[in-house]
Amino acid sequence: MSLELLTDLYEFSMANGYYAALPHDRQARFDVFYRRVPDNGSFVVSAGLQQVIEEIKNWHFSADDIAYLQSLKEFSPAFLNYLSRVHNQCTVKALPEGTPVFPREPIMSITGPLVEAQLLETLVLNIINHQSLIATKSWQINHAAQGRPIMEFGARRAQGPDAATYGARAAVIGGCTNTSNLLAASRFNIPAAGTMAHAWVESFPDELSAFRAWAHVYPDKISLLVDTYDVLTSGVPNAIKVFKEARAHGHEPIGIRIDSGDITQLATKARQMLDAAGFQNAKITASNALDAQVVKSLLDEGAPIDNFGIGERLITSSSSPVLSGVYKLAAEKVNHQWIPKIKVSDSREKITLPGDKQVYRLYDENGKAFADVIALADEKLTTPLKVINADPQATNATRTLTDFKAVPLLKDYLSAQHTLTPENDVFQIQKYAKSKLSELPEATKRLVNPDRYPVYLTTKLAALQEKLITEHQVNN
Amino acid sequence: MSLELLTDLYEFSMANGYYAALPHDRQARFDVFYRRVPDNGSFVVSAGLQQVIEEIKNWHFSADDIAYLQSLKEFSPAFLNYLSRVHNQCTVKALPEGTPVFPREPIMSITGPLVEAQLLETLVLNIINHQSLIATKSWQINHAAQGRPIMEFGARRAQGPDAATYGARAAVIGGCTNTSNLLAASRFNIPAAGTMAHAWVESFPDELSAFRAWAHVYPDKISLLVDTYDVLTSGVPNAIKVFKEARAHGHEPIGIRIDSGDITQLATKARQMLDAAGFQNAKITASNALDAQVVKSLLDEGAPIDNFGIGERLITSSSSPVLSGVYKLAAEKVNHQWIPKIKVSDSREKITLPGDKQVYRLYDENGKAFADVIALADEKLTTPLKVINADPQATNATRTLTDFKAVPLLKDYLSAQHTLTPENDVFQIQKYAKSKLSELPEATKRLVNPDRYPVYLTTKLAALQEKLITEHQVNN
Repeated sequence: MSLELLTDLYEFSMANGYYAALPHDRQARFDVFYRRVPDNGSFVVSAGLQQVIEEIKNWHFSADDIAYLQSLKEFSPAFLNYLSRVHNQCTVKALPEGTPVFPREPIMSITGPLVEAQLLETLVLNIINHQSLIATKSWQINHAAQGRPIMEFGARRAQGPDAATYGARAAVIGGCTNTSNLLAASRFNIPAAGTMAHAWVESFPDELSAFRAWAHVYPDKISLLVDTYDVLTSGVPNAIKVFKEARAHGHEPIGIRIDSGDITQLATKARQMLDAAGFQNAKITASNALDAQVVKSLLDEGAPIDNFGIGERLITSSSSPVLSGVYKLAAEKVNHQWIPKIKVSDSREKITLPGDKQVYRLYDENGKAFADVIALADEKLTTPLKVINADPQATNATRTLTDFKAVPLLKDYLSAQHTLTPENDVFQIQKYAKSKLSELPEATKRLVNPDRYPVYLTTKLAALQEKLITEHQVNN
Repeated sequence: MSLELLTDLYEFSMANGYYAALPHDRQARFDVFYRRVPDNGSFVVSAGLQQVIEEIKNWHFSADDIAYLQSLKEFSPAFLNYLSRVHNQCTVKALPEGTPVFPREPIMSITGPLVEAQLLETLVLNIINHQSLIATKSWQINHAAQGRPIMEFGARRAQGPDAATYGARAAVIGGCTNTSNLLAASRFNIPAAGTMAHAWVESFPDELSAFRAWAHVYPDKISLLVDTYDVLTSGVPNAIKVFKEARAHGHEPIGIRIDSGDITQLATKARQMLDAAGFQNAKITASNALDAQVVKSLLDEGAPIDNFGIGERLITSSSSPVLSGVYKLAAEKVNHQWIPKIKVSDSREKITLPGDKQVYRLYDENGKAFADVIALADEKLTTPLKVINADPQATNATRTLTDFKAVPLLKDYLSAQHTLTPENDVFQIQKYAKSKLSELPEATKRLVNPDRYPVYLTTKLAALQEKLITEHQVNN
């Protein structure tokens, strides 16, 4: 499906208005960023860049799109004619997918003709907000699982087909190893996972026949769902019978899955039964209503779980199902000159950062990140560096930073000079994410009540913001 | 995008296993139903049927799909050959979209070759769960708004493009009048709505110039966003200036929108200012972080709001973002005979209802619905009707019903005899939903702590369920 019309009407209304009221060469720069982290976490794992770049590169309006827009009787013939011929002229600067990003830092910056950049807002936010949300939730659950493999199982509870499919990709960026969703698996080259549902067991006269039939068809994929009737009196004993038969025929079973009941108790007893029967290597997979907190509490209790299968609470980020990323004007080019712009608000938190910016991650001599600095793009960070806390609520507003290595995070993906193609291999993105996450302080990665990682503004950026606030107060 | 692969791997694993282990003429019937209502409501507004029917009618596997499945090295050549030639043979019985449906009642029932019906599970649940979730949330918010028009504004915060687009359609089924999302508007023939964002106001030297420019371009669509700087000292006074200028030129303004701050206070004062300036007909739209509870509390406080624009809390159902519909085996046809099937569980609530069923809504002499009865499809409901509460937790388990008119709710949409096309016009579906909702008791529609609407089983269905539970206990 073509997504050019996945755009709020008001974007077209404004674009048509700009086209009528402003010079056609007016350029604009918009930043994508967010203010609050889902689940009261301290950062978001960015995702969605690849789809955004694809959509922007191919952005154009079909004859049907134009006919529909015309039918709204709101847009001038000149504007519609312009739209019918338009192809992307915007440039994109962004964080690579998988980058941990903090509040107020631009995830992406889009620069181009005001009309065109405005028309991209809804689509860009839709993609970035959704995919970054799920990558973040996936990271949280994977962090709780302490390295145990997590399979994404949520397709049936996702908010529609795209949510299932791009959500599975984002889940892998956040650390998942597999997905059950074959559309995502085939499209993004993710190993597919899963064995049987309760329906398989119910399609045979009894559980043992069902397990035997499975072992007959899949002698090298004997992973049995043991909770259709009763885990400990029926499921596990029947599984062990079939495991023994398989081993007698030279096939080593994979393990069992528990999808209901008290997982800690059931897994502990099942582990004992499997071990006693000589199946110490059989894995136990848990998959019932899991989220980061539940995974953590199961492991804290010592539940002997080898893998997790996680469904609705991952694929919808149900505990915090919205990432409220915004798309805000940062600058406009008027008469060949870029003018930084600001949105002023009664709430200090909602005042935007003006101008063309770069985000730097600051590392100490051990390669550990200890702060980020948002600077104007043409600044050079030199030590000692005087900075101002980007969080308007922070005490200790100013600080001088020394002994750091500053690494710029935003890269040019679509620009006049060259096109950097976003990483395509989702496991390479996962690897990059793991490496960037490993650089962050442990306290910042705590799932509950994390330490706020410091994000600063350069004094030059802070001064520009103050100047624009003052100018605005004078003008209004 | 083709959705045949939007299927969990285990569905294919099971289907391949059935194909190997069971007679190929084995037929199965699966029911789609849910157990818990989002937001602790008492019912769900069903949605998603139209997309499900489209997908099932066109269901087939492309050469690429088959090549991918083959690459998994898990499926037999005979099974893959069968898949490469398969076209839908399933029949579908379902509630029309927009039907209020209670826990345990089948929303849909799919009957066909076991292999094929099994392969539809993930896709069917994905679509029905998502769209019914949003239709239900939309109904809740519309109920709270007491007839005031609600515009769906959530595209940028939806969980991906499908969630935005099918979600907007579901929002209209639940009562919304408009969407801002032009992809949904164009595809489903929904009136598009929206005017300007803060970016418009910021693109001009000051707010008054921005409003004047708007009025110049859209003299008959003067609806102004008044909170870019300050609602009461800047936004509303500037809006009134422009309204007066417009009126002087023969154009009557539409109104203002408030998107931040304390809506009740701001709307109350804005109303006074507009009225005092002679714009009693100018509408006030509110659009800041609204949900059913907030809408209700604004109206309880007497906030003079004429329309609502509702974003993320509607399009993601953020307060309760998952509808956990399930797809459970109800019967199998073995040797030309249908055999009812059951899933037994330690939890009485999770035991399924066997057989081919019909849902009846029972009306009193005033046309008010007072109970539903789930019956076997071949039963006739006659008065007096002895029934058993479908909720295993209910006291007062049995009851005798008299003086009712019973109307069957499930209809045949795809069947051997004929094809009933689901209603295509989303406003006709909304009209049907409103009519079905108006039949329900007010207490059942209460947003907080609603009265549980009674759902009963016929004694014949309850006896069949008991018989299968007993047989199962004997067998295991």
